[in-house]
Amino acid sequence: MVGGAFVKENNCDFIVALGGGSCMDAAKAIAVMATNEGDYWDYIPSGSGKGMPLKNSPLPVIAITTTAGTGSETDSGTVITHEEKHEKTGFVHEELFPVLAIVDPELMLTVPPKFTAYQGFDALFHSVEGYVSNGANLMSDMYAITAIENIAKNLAKTVKNGNDLDAREKVAFGNTLSGTVMCVGILTSQHSLEHAMSAYHQELPHGAGLIMISKAYFTHFIDKHVCDDRFVQMAKVMGMEDAKEPMDFIKMLVKLQEDCGVADLRMSDYGITPDEFKTMAKNAKDTMGFLFTCDRTELSIDDCVAIYEASYK
Amino acid sequence: MVGGAFVKENNCDFIVALGGGSCMDAAKAIAVMATNEGDYWDYIPSGSGKGMPLKNSPLPVIAITTTAGTGSETDSGTVITHEEKHEKTGFVHEELFPVLAIVDPELMLTVPPKFTAYQGFDALFHSVEGYVSNGANLMSDMYAITAIENIAKNLAKTVKNGNDLDAREKVAFGNTLSGTVMCVGILTSQHSLEHAMSAYHQELPHGAGLIMISKAYFTHFIDKHVCDDRFVQMAKVMGMEDAKEPMDFIKMLVKLQEDCGVADLRMSDYGITPDEFKTMAKNAKDTMGFLFTCDRTELSIDDCVAIYEASYK
Repeated sequence: MVGGAFVKENNCDFIVALGGGSCMDAAKAIAVMATNEGDYWDYIPSGSGKGMPLKNSPLPVIAITTTAGTGSETDSGTVITHEEKHEKTGFVHEELFPVLAIVDPELMLTVPPKFTAYQGFDALFHSVEGYVSNGANLMSDMYAITAIENIAKNLAKTVKNGNDLDAREKVAFGNTLSGTVMCVGILTSQHSLEHAMSAYHQELPHGAGLIMISKAYFTHFIDKHVCDDRFVQMAKVMGMEDAKEPMDFIKMLVKLQEDCGVADLRMSDYGITPDEFKTMAKNAKDTMGFLFTCDRTELSIDDCVAIYEASYK
Repeated sequence: MVGGAFVKENNCDFIVALGGGSCMDAAKAIAVMATNEGDYWDYIPSGSGKGMPLKNSPLPVIAITTTAGTGSETDSGTVITHEEKHEKTGFVHEELFPVLAIVDPELMLTVPPKFTAYQGFDALFHSVEGYVSNGANLMSDMYAITAIENIAKNLAKTVKNGNDLDAREKVAFGNTLSGTVMCVGILTSQHSLEHAMSAYHQELPHGAGLIMISKAYFTHFIDKHVCDDRFVQMAKVMGMEDAKEPMDFIKMLVKLQEDCGVADLRMSDYGITPDEFKTMAKNAKDTMGFLFTCDRTELSIDDCVAIYEASYK
């Protein structure tokens, strides 16, 4: 989080979020609670949340993003972790779209390489998940495939040279589109599986957790042949113009992780142990069960555990 | 024009436009004059318009489009013809974005084949012009290339079978995106040249006029090699996957016009004669001069006349 400020103008309060996803999502949650009584978890529609409707409109949020990761500057959601309950889950409300979003790659020039990669893969996966979800549509496909191409072809350049403004711009553009994918389309359960990981291991960056499980996660769906053509199309726009097999997507995904220096991230480095996998799988389904209904084939608890196990280092 | 209605709700007047581009643009002009004094041409920023700023916000417009042509349901502009002055020109204001747009291909099922084609080509050219303009950018390119693909691959199907709802949906989707191209990007002078034609021959449908001059117009820019790669890319998404030459775009454009039964439209059928070409070229520059600054190479009056002449049948 970089910082935030309240601004009063014409008798209207705004919240200005200047920072990354945590900052913008915190600003949105503050915007909700500035005008509504009780506890934030009263309004959370999943996990142990009470799912109460908001009585009052949240304060307007102005989002100035300093990262290319969450897409929170263009979406109507906020993800907050309940540290005691180990629930990391989202809250979506149409009045949480920022009233103004500023996406300026010059504000991202000092993001360190490692976090540039984590954030970029988060953005990439918003679009990859949207593209292979059962909620894919003409509009979400346009945003997703454009985002995947821009991020995949520019993220490694950005990681290697943080001052490459052209590459930063294209990754930021892809991230902004990926935020829109979440609004006109939907994510899939990869995000639920990762949120369970970082709910129990809160020092694990969200993007790093996604990178760890992504190869096993998407291979599961490729093996089920849920949408072969879509995986081939993604491989093509990621740079393999003559892609023919769905597994070509995995080749390009792993290559991008290698090129960005994040192919060897290890769960064990963050204290995750295999005996937690069943708990995490249940947490994913209990806390963010909705995204499991967006998969093209249903993941069982055993499938989730198998994905965690295949990803473990 | 199908029809319009004033709706009063919570002390707020709305204008509901149900129809095609003429209906929606008329609704927007009415929305301006319902809250501002004087003559509509007082506010027109080009031709003989006085370019005065609006004193009051226009009424909100709800646009329900029954055609896939102008994209007026998603843009902030309106085009009106001054019949006596032969000025057909646009007025753009950020408060002219419809507050609600309904794009439902089922409302387009009864559009006759001929008008389906004229409207579809208007939509196509919004994106083609945007894509080859000097204002093309990451965002406009995404909308434009997606629109070109959807329209080019589905317009002939829609013309041949008006009840093909899947094809109608994709043309309507392309039209909606093309409207957005005009907001995040820009058109080029082809629209100025056509507006001059239909300003003097008001029975000429806008889309038909564009079709008549399009081959000569884009060939002019291809001959100047202003953006070879962009013409090749358009030919590819229009269906020629192995396109290599900029003129492949012209091949695909003419093929689409043939497939839609509009390749033989004749200016002479609308009473246009070659001795008008110089007057029309001057009218285009005087009335909609701005779009000439969006071309990648400058069109002279003689160039405009040559385009009209090459298009004449």
